[in-house]
Amino acid sequence: MNELYTKFHQLRSNISDLAYTHAVLNWDMEIYMPKGGSDFRSQQISTLAGLVHDLSTSNEMGDLLAKLAKDDTLNAIERRNVQESVRLYERERKLDNDFVKRLSQAISQSYKAWMQARDKDDFKVFAPQLKEVFELSREKAARFGYQGHPYDALLDEYEPGMKTNTLDTVFSGVKSKLGAFINKIKDQEAPDQAILNADFPIQAQEALCKTIATGLGFDWNRGRLDISEHPFTTSFNPNDVRITTRYKENNLLESVWGVIHEVGHGLYEQGLPDSQYGLPAGEPVSLAIHESQSRLWENNVGKSFNFIDAYWDTFQNSFPEAFANKSSQSFFKAINKIEPNLIRTDSDEVTYHFHILLRYEIEKGLMEGSLDILDLEDIWNSKIKEYLGLDVPSPKLGVLQDIHWSHGSIGYFPTYSLGTFYAAQFYATAAKAIPDLDHQIHHKNFAPLLVWLRENIHRLGHQYDSEELCLKVSGEPLNYNYFDEYIHHKFGQVYKF
Amino acid sequence: MNELYTKFHQLRSNISDLAYTHAVLNWDMEIYMPKGGSDFRSQQISTLAGLVHDLSTSNEMGDLLAKLAKDDTLNAIERRNVQESVRLYERERKLDNDFVKRLSQAISQSYKAWMQARDKDDFKVFAPQLKEVFELSREKAARFGYQGHPYDALLDEYEPGMKTNTLDTVFSGVKSKLGAFINKIKDQEAPDQAILNADFPIQAQEALCKTIATGLGFDWNRGRLDISEHPFTTSFNPNDVRITTRYKENNLLESVWGVIHEVGHGLYEQGLPDSQYGLPAGEPVSLAIHESQSRLWENNVGKSFNFIDAYWDTFQNSFPEAFANKSSQSFFKAINKIEPNLIRTDSDEVTYHFHILLRYEIEKGLMEGSLDILDLEDIWNSKIKEYLGLDVPSPKLGVLQDIHWSHGSIGYFPTYSLGTFYAAQFYATAAKAIPDLDHQIHHKNFAPLLVWLRENIHRLGHQYDSEELCLKVSGEPLNYNYFDEYIHHKFGQVYKF
Repeated sequence: MNELYTKFHQLRSNISDLAYTHAVLNWDMEIYMPKGGSDFRSQQISTLAGLVHDLSTSNEMGDLLAKLAKDDTLNAIERRNVQESVRLYERERKLDNDFVKRLSQAISQSYKAWMQARDKDDFKVFAPQLKEVFELSREKAARFGYQGHPYDALLDEYEPGMKTNTLDTVFSGVKSKLGAFINKIKDQEAPDQAILNADFPIQAQEALCKTIATGLGFDWNRGRLDISEHPFTTSFNPNDVRITTRYKENNLLESVWGVIHEVGHGLYEQGLPDSQYGLPAGEPVSLAIHESQSRLWENNVGKSFNFIDAYWDTFQNSFPEAFANKSSQSFFKAINKIEPNLIRTDSDEVTYHFHILLRYEIEKGLMEGSLDILDLEDIWNSKIKEYLGLDVPSPKLGVLQDIHWSHGSIGYFPTYSLGTFYAAQFYATAAKAIPDLDHQIHHKNFAPLLVWLRENIHRLGHQYDSEELCLKVSGEPLNYNYFDEYIHHKFGQVYKF
Repeated sequence: MNELYTKFHQLRSNISDLAYTHAVLNWDMEIYMPKGGSDFRSQQISTLAGLVHDLSTSNEMGDLLAKLAKDDTLNAIERRNVQESVRLYERERKLDNDFVKRLSQAISQSYKAWMQARDKDDFKVFAPQLKEVFELSREKAARFGYQGHPYDALLDEYEPGMKTNTLDTVFSGVKSKLGAFINKIKDQEAPDQAILNADFPIQAQEALCKTIATGLGFDWNRGRLDISEHPFTTSFNPNDVRITTRYKENNLLESVWGVIHEVGHGLYEQGLPDSQYGLPAGEPVSLAIHESQSRLWENNVGKSFNFIDAYWDTFQNSFPEAFANKSSQSFFKAINKIEPNLIRTDSDEVTYHFHILLRYEIEKGLMEGSLDILDLEDIWNSKIKEYLGLDVPSPKLGVLQDIHWSHGSIGYFPTYSLGTFYAAQFYATAAKAIPDLDHQIHHKNFAPLLVWLRENIHRLGHQYDSEELCLKVSGEPLNYNYFDEYIHHKFGQVYKF
């Protein structure tokens, strides 16, 4: 037993204990906390965050890491845990308390301004505070340091190792190939969605969501499903993973495919190795890899004909009035309609990526200084017109729709698309390894896929950055063509190509 | 502004942030946590507890307190906050890490042994571990130090300032006066409880509990009611107070009067001054004062005829099948039957105190060394025979019934009776201050009582120890006679005296 390494693991576990405790406070705040509790709760969360920062950047941690970095008796996983911890330690040490305070004040102001701007439906109310957030983000990038593009330094927070260069390649695929894809179908007759306009009693929705989550392999002994205004997944450790959803009487898609999405995140968290608790090898790789898991189950599995057909009996039994005498085929087509939407979160799985493309272009431009905040509304509207052919009637339905920028999350959006593209590549790889995968899904046997994901992705934790992992899993770097093939295959069952 | 005091308040607030966070983890563990999460959750809780201990006993805290203790510019509340914090600081410094570890290991072992002993219904399985717990408790008392009885040092943890002498006086009242009281009724005809043997649909119980909690003044904007196996109240700050209950189809009393009890605790927590968050003046006085609030609402208010009669319509509307054509009088009598029970928690509010008396005598004897653990089962059984006239058929229904000793909680039981007796004294005092109090209760107007409790007890936090508070509120020290008068008055409506 290496004493120093054991000490290091212990210290990291303590930090995770506090970080996961922070997650419990957040979860409770979203789901159960009475309104009156919010001021003290914010204070408690901030105290915990401060402690996590102090412990993570302590001299004790620094000394341990310096010694362990030179220790050649460590095995490969241990070495990787040390390396990644050094990266995180050095990164966090670069933000001094004064900067953290300025940033958090600016974010708090900009969040308020964003709320007001939405109320007034006026981008100008938000612009000055957004400018401040981007200025501080540039300062942050400079503090972190970068070799290529300043945007790299921000990306690194959500997607370690990811570069603007790679994103440029990926999004050129979106611009050309996805643009061509949409052009092919835009004048075709759209599938009929009448089947979705029905009453779906909430109790039956709840039961159905649980049935499907169970079927996919979500472990209720190590997880829960609750209701929150905005669905999310959080983990308090690999054996306590909480997902949420929301139910509306007239909207079946939001709850069922929302739950499948969160189950995807949850299966990933439940599959992390608990022996590595507190260490990088016990944690998820990145936002994109996390999103690859949710999108894979939601779209590649959950919106496939095989899946719909497998569960069609269950759907019909759950909602006899809505689905009697309806076919799985018509339901499959209805939920796979492609139609540009002004709102990112309401978009289908294809046009969605134009939303990310335009946000990526804007973030990069603002970070470079080649775009001006004051022009942002016009830029947004013209890009929406160019990519989706839509006119933006008001900023609430355009540049003011997302919370991310007001929260200072710059570099976050691209991970949504990356996740989707990784999902397509992983699913294609799994399909090669499991020759009858589609057949298994048609028989509600999801275990082979889950076992494959556990083996190849979940159990590895963050031993590899996303690009390394992708190479290891699929034998090649991220390749947009897998997504292109996937949508041609699936939407070929709905549209003509 | 006194800079040192501000720094001290800040430090205490940080400690409370972590201590309340600990409470959130416990609450979630009891109510929502999936089973699989328990190992890591225990670890997270232990990390938080360790941090709270480290911060509470830090040299920084010690230096601040030493300086503030000499500061004569502080006002009365500030002085009291410093004094009480000094007491807690010095107390906690007396337990070194080695002792804390030994104690926590012994408790963990004894809890397991207690569970096994209950399974086997055999006290001998628990005896060796219980002996260890009492030995460590004696060591703890020696470390804390005491002037009179070693039991004083343990009492102090739950009931600061309370002495064994005072308890001897109080329990001599139980032994003689309460004994005489029970003797008077034991051959009388008991009230008919047939009215309680009915089906009480759980949804209706839930609605009724909420109606009553609202009526009593529980603030839902600053609190919640959830379901747990064992009912409890916890607070995450004065503006976020959580109570729990449980529902059984065939048991109305457990849920409704359980909720009233917890509401009593909850109103106290919601009434603490939030400006004093983190400081003694923002915290409850003691377990007994806490219990005085729950018992006052549960028994003095909630089991009075005026209360039952006021809500009788609501009861009848909630459970038409059970209560149609039944009178509030018969229900009032049914819920106020006095009947010795082997189990403390199933006991009526009168014979209950014999349970506490015998536990008090045993704890004191074991601490003194005048009793031997090996004789405990016999001692228990003979005292139950003497005080309640019952034969104990098996240790599960006797000496093994409570969890407290296995948890190392010695000195805790007396606070239940103290709380009840304080409740009687406080209620009698309130009734003098609010001349038409009974009339107000009969009109469901609980505001005058709550306002009085807020003013005289809640808003003071822990500015006074329980005996000081009692003197301040009622003009005299704790006096058992108030309880004697209360039960003569109430049970005089059920039995003949």
